[in-house]
Amino acid sequence: MPDKAKKKGKSELKGLLESRVREEIRLLSAYSVPDYKTRIKLDGNESPFSLAGEIGEEVIAKLRTVDVNRYPDPEAAELRSLISKINGFPREGILLGNGSDELIGMLITAFSGGTGRVLYPTPTFSMYGISGLALGRELLEAELDGNFDLDMDMIAALIASKDPDLIFLACPNNPTGNAYSADRIEEIIGLSKGVVVVDEAYSDFCVYTFLPLIRKHENLIILRTLSKVGFAGLRLGILYGRENLVREINKVRYPYNINSFTQGAAEVVLRNHEFVSENIQLIVRERGRVYKALSCIRGVEAYPSDANFVLFKVSDADAVFKALVERDVLIRNFNRPGRLENCMRVTIGTPYENDSFLSALGDVLSS
Amino acid sequence: MPDKAKKKGKSELKGLLESRVREEIRLLSAYSVPDYKTRIKLDGNESPFSLAGEIGEEVIAKLRTVDVNRYPDPEAAELRSLISKINGFPREGILLGNGSDELIGMLITAFSGGTGRVLYPTPTFSMYGISGLALGRELLEAELDGNFDLDMDMIAALIASKDPDLIFLACPNNPTGNAYSADRIEEIIGLSKGVVVVDEAYSDFCVYTFLPLIRKHENLIILRTLSKVGFAGLRLGILYGRENLVREINKVRYPYNINSFTQGAAEVVLRNHEFVSENIQLIVRERGRVYKALSCIRGVEAYPSDANFVLFKVSDADAVFKALVERDVLIRNFNRPGRLENCMRVTIGTPYENDSFLSALGDVLSS
Repeated sequence: MPDKAKKKGKSELKGLLESRVREEIRLLSAYSVPDYKTRIKLDGNESPFSLAGEIGEEVIAKLRTVDVNRYPDPEAAELRSLISKINGFPREGILLGNGSDELIGMLITAFSGGTGRVLYPTPTFSMYGISGLALGRELLEAELDGNFDLDMDMIAALIASKDPDLIFLACPNNPTGNAYSADRIEEIIGLSKGVVVVDEAYSDFCVYTFLPLIRKHENLIILRTLSKVGFAGLRLGILYGRENLVREINKVRYPYNINSFTQGAAEVVLRNHEFVSENIQLIVRERGRVYKALSCIRGVEAYPSDANFVLFKVSDADAVFKALVERDVLIRNFNRPGRLENCMRVTIGTPYENDSFLSALGDVLSS
Repeated sequence: MPDKAKKKGKSELKGLLESRVREEIRLLSAYSVPDYKTRIKLDGNESPFSLAGEIGEEVIAKLRTVDVNRYPDPEAAELRSLISKINGFPREGILLGNGSDELIGMLITAFSGGTGRVLYPTPTFSMYGISGLALGRELLEAELDGNFDLDMDMIAALIASKDPDLIFLACPNNPTGNAYSADRIEEIIGLSKGVVVVDEAYSDFCVYTFLPLIRKHENLIILRTLSKVGFAGLRLGILYGRENLVREINKVRYPYNINSFTQGAAEVVLRNHEFVSENIQLIVRERGRVYKALSCIRGVEAYPSDANFVLFKVSDADAVFKALVERDVLIRNFNRPGRLENCMRVTIGTPYENDSFLSALGDVLSS
């Protein structure tokens, strides 16, 4: 068994079983996260602030009360009630996922009764395409315009001709960092006869949210997450929509998808939201400083950001990436032909981490 | 918005968006778990033993070390290495899920390149059918024989005529409690040209496992879980298979599907496996006692069990269920036309809980 498979090395699945795996999946590579051990880690759009002090103790105290032998509350009623209270949004319109990744998968699973097509602008978060492929959907990609904003002509034409069941708009967008023009988003919601998902994973670092628009548009779904504001390890994605839509999505949810520790810890964290807000404000201030500093480095073109990271362009991203790792700084290299050629993304960290990155980059580019 | 939706009451999704949800999903009911608050809870096949004492403290100490602001290890390398060591199974053949539910969904997503058909015997665990429907597969159901064992004529005929991509065999089976004949399972694995999944969620309470058969059969996948042995709240399902198969399934896994708390807690728990084993032995002893006691109650037909629960039949399950709840005892009522008519399932709890159940049931049936 595995011995034999091992001998074959990395060869693909062969023989009788090969055809049982859908071709799109066979051709996929597994999502892999390279494992660099650097002192400064600014590659994952994580918050640099770990739980500590009183709130850390409160979380641990809460975890102590969990009966791990029992299944979690399948409705996560307490946590959803708390989110409902904080946002003034009805609990029945709130659905939780094991990270936004799972919510994206649930949306693609549920909304595929029409054309089975999924539209998203590119470049953007990779999971819309990966999950769409894995679930056998037809993918429609619309390249962003010169300002990384939505190309309305192309998108309107695709909606008219292809009528996608589902449109994903990450706003602010990853990895470009900018929020799309609000009027363009609203125009797309109006044009689409399918469901439009505005993925607000980074909206905590930005001035506006589309949440109130659910009142106006029945086909709008909003995604949020705790991952970017200090709790990536918990895996908690939050979906908002009208109750009748959410009821359908809920049918494809695994009943116990949010484990007991995450439910408990998230309750404590959300009850202490001012602590989270302070960290967000610090990141936003630092983002301004990093953007300005990057713009002053010769050979760097930095793009404005509404998120907790900054995208920038250099003349040789692969070389810069390697030289930064050698200087114990990890950022994300997006270099590939097209719009992201020689582009790199740096997550905003603590002032110390940002200074370390800026100084290493300055060093690399001047040497 | 939600106000308007609210006024419509429980009406289904209407209008333009209705057709965007696949019909099978519109017709599904959400998996719902009725919320009874009873003193004795024997309905969920959970372990009655909560984490406490030294191991509880060790888990908490481990959780304190988690940096929740960072994403979990996407490979769960340490946890998979530990499982590999315990079971002598190569790490590259081990995949983890957010409960077995997620692994079942991943299997149905990945293995649908042939006929798109999924076969399972009935009655069995409901998620094979629910996930199969949600993902748009054709479901083939083969009713169990008079002994709740696999009906080989029917299954062989379905394999020959319908060639399913995927077969799910829960062994021991839920809710019937019995393990299928091992030779029938192996015959099915041999007959199938697709993938056969033996779901061993309850195998800890049983004398054998099919894990070593992976050496012999390239199309065999084994599922296990921590949910039945004391850790339902953690949500950890474990999949074993040949590396070349597992590599394909891994492509449809959400990269960060196992949160950091669960990874940490499971490591501690699995390092202290003797504690888990002792609890399992107690449950097995109690199962024998409960089965014997049930068999002695007039009006009860109890079925032999290899799992942590016992299925039994009464003359009016709905009335018995209600009367037990009134006596503060919750079990699971499976009454429905067919093989499970008037059948009920009781999870094995502590000796005290089992006595409370037996005495309440005796009371109900003699009154």
